[in-house]
Amino acid sequence: MKNIVILGATGSIGMNTLDVISRFPDRFRVVGLTVRSNDVKLETLIKRFQPKVVSLMDEVAAAALSKRLNGSGTEVLSGMEGCVEVARFPDCDIVVSAVVGAAGLLPTLSAIQNGKVVALANKETLVMAGEIIQKEARSRNVPLLPIDSEHSAIFQVLSGERHEDLLRLILTASGGPLIDFTPEMKEKVSPEVALAHPNWKMGPKISIDSATLMNKGLEVIEARWFFDAPPEKIDVVIHRQSIIHSMVEFVDRSVVAQMGLPDMRVPISYALHYPERAPLSLPSLQLEEIGQLTFEKPDRKAFPLLTCAYDALKGGGTLPSVLNAVNEEAVEAFLSEKIRFVEIAQVVQQTMESHCPQSIGTLDDVLEADQWARREGQLWISKYAA
Amino acid sequence: MKNIVILGATGSIGMNTLDVISRFPDRFRVVGLTVRSNDVKLETLIKRFQPKVVSLMDEVAAAALSKRLNGSGTEVLSGMEGCVEVARFPDCDIVVSAVVGAAGLLPTLSAIQNGKVVALANKETLVMAGEIIQKEARSRNVPLLPIDSEHSAIFQVLSGERHEDLLRLILTASGGPLIDFTPEMKEKVSPEVALAHPNWKMGPKISIDSATLMNKGLEVIEARWFFDAPPEKIDVVIHRQSIIHSMVEFVDRSVVAQMGLPDMRVPISYALHYPERAPLSLPSLQLEEIGQLTFEKPDRKAFPLLTCAYDALKGGGTLPSVLNAVNEEAVEAFLSEKIRFVEIAQVVQQTMESHCPQSIGTLDDVLEADQWARREGQLWISKYAA
Repeated sequence: MKNIVILGATGSIGMNTLDVISRFPDRFRVVGLTVRSNDVKLETLIKRFQPKVVSLMDEVAAAALSKRLNGSGTEVLSGMEGCVEVARFPDCDIVVSAVVGAAGLLPTLSAIQNGKVVALANKETLVMAGEIIQKEARSRNVPLLPIDSEHSAIFQVLSGERHEDLLRLILTASGGPLIDFTPEMKEKVSPEVALAHPNWKMGPKISIDSATLMNKGLEVIEARWFFDAPPEKIDVVIHRQSIIHSMVEFVDRSVVAQMGLPDMRVPISYALHYPERAPLSLPSLQLEEIGQLTFEKPDRKAFPLLTCAYDALKGGGTLPSVLNAVNEEAVEAFLSEKIRFVEIAQVVQQTMESHCPQSIGTLDDVLEADQWARREGQLWISKYAA
Repeated sequence: MKNIVILGATGSIGMNTLDVISRFPDRFRVVGLTVRSNDVKLETLIKRFQPKVVSLMDEVAAAALSKRLNGSGTEVLSGMEGCVEVARFPDCDIVVSAVVGAAGLLPTLSAIQNGKVVALANKETLVMAGEIIQKEARSRNVPLLPIDSEHSAIFQVLSGERHEDLLRLILTASGGPLIDFTPEMKEKVSPEVALAHPNWKMGPKISIDSATLMNKGLEVIEARWFFDAPPEKIDVVIHRQSIIHSMVEFVDRSVVAQMGLPDMRVPISYALHYPERAPLSLPSLQLEEIGQLTFEKPDRKAFPLLTCAYDALKGGGTLPSVLNAVNEEAVEAFLSEKIRFVEIAQVVQQTMESHCPQSIGTLDDVLEADQWARREGQLWISKYAA
């Protein structure tokens, strides 16, 4: 029996994780859950999974829930401190880190520092602090298991292979809902259109990142740290059907790919059961029904944020943190209709250009860069919003 | 340094194996070669690779070569006995079994019984005597490494996985040169047309087997023994581009595929270097240049020999040997223009129907069935040829 904590329980990954856990009641037990503010949904999950501890970022919601749950046996914590507390809950084996955005960094780091196996869906942890996280995980011999479908694909393919035999990682990208939009069409894209991902149901932030290909850019940076591969060994190919989740080319020119119908429960189950696989009663991939898989070179001009991400990775230091933070601000500004779709990339690019990159020694350097980028990004956003 | 014997050195797999070996002079040394009858080509190989022993099936050619080589340090043997002798040459680590047809069975079995690692390209060994070979290899803990691109793909994907996690093997088939031929067009197919494989350069026998899909049927039978998977867990999908060499579906619905540009040196190198991979300076697969990969259900009506092969595997006993032997006879009769293309399947089917299947106890049972099938097949061939 493995005891599981889920950070970001009510999000898309969190709910899929609970679905997987509920399919294996003899193998997994939920011991902790954290959410941002949805106390009503959290209360339903508490009744169903009976965790020992929960935490809400929102203090008011936490206080209300705490009152309602009084005497139920589930402890209610709040704020970042509460979240970190749940992440290092002593009687826990695996922490599923599925918080969206930079807010996932501190609790994930805390889980690693406390020796937990971390199943990582939160991209920002590795994008912002890849070097620190990698060092902490290695020094404690803590496995970092990817949950993203792309990184899970690569992780599955690499298991049983030697690191020195790796020639190239090939991340697949669906291209998102705007892949065939002309520059003119992109000028007028509404949040509703940009949110309509063709293959995956995901939260709003990651859906917009898919439409700009920033999501793939962030995944390139993650891949660098997950698999210890330099940027020149990481490629991106547009694969609209999202059937091949990613590939690895080896030194002998063998290319090995992991594929399947798009369903996050597959990589989640892989991470939870690792190093075993467990039977999932989901539909089988029938390639003869899919008919064809297509592949295209990404259009770097149409998707400038992909190049931005490679540049940030190559530049290193505080650049990836700045990229990530200003992108979060810009996406939020687009979703609340303060700026237009095409201005997301402009805000990110201009903020990156104004940044004076520094090397990273401690987590504070990361957080400072993050804060600087948000302030700088807001300046640019207000210029465009004006 | 690994010492290598190649059975069938002048064939397509044999020559590709020598190409791989010559790329790694510090890792591999050729100690033995066997060929059917081409003493001139063998002489060139002897000068280049200086094996300690060679053998020709053709006694006359062997005698002539022996005379020419007198005092060169390479011993020349002949006949099946000579071939078996080379296969169990004491100072040899890996035997590459690349003889075409049933003639490969005895020397391959001898290599296994003498504890050699066997890299197997000869399909007939497992098709005819899968159960016996599997038992011999297991009892001696001798690894059987596949060289066929399909089985190598599956072997690569399964390495590092647990056997119980395997749900389904999916063999890909290009469909061969006649995939789009109507029944009327097939009535008039010449050997020349049937030999023109779209993706792979191979010998004549296997090229015709590709055109009838019998090659895939034989591979299904091989897969059953290589990977200990029952027939209902082995599927075939038509994939015209021959980029995905085969796939495995696991119990968690993950499908893992090995792919690459069609080049036999990749699976050969994998087998020779196993469990490592070695750098091969060959062109990289660029999926964005390939553009698309397609998948279709095989048309069982148009390719009746695929169903024949499944039936033989399910029926078991002497049936696969009969299937294989009569098919060899029928293909040979087609290539020498005694029967028409469509009559290959008819000769095979009618011989299978006249056979009274028996269980297999010893290798003699296998060889008897093989002989019976050839005689019976010739009767049918002479009827069609009349």
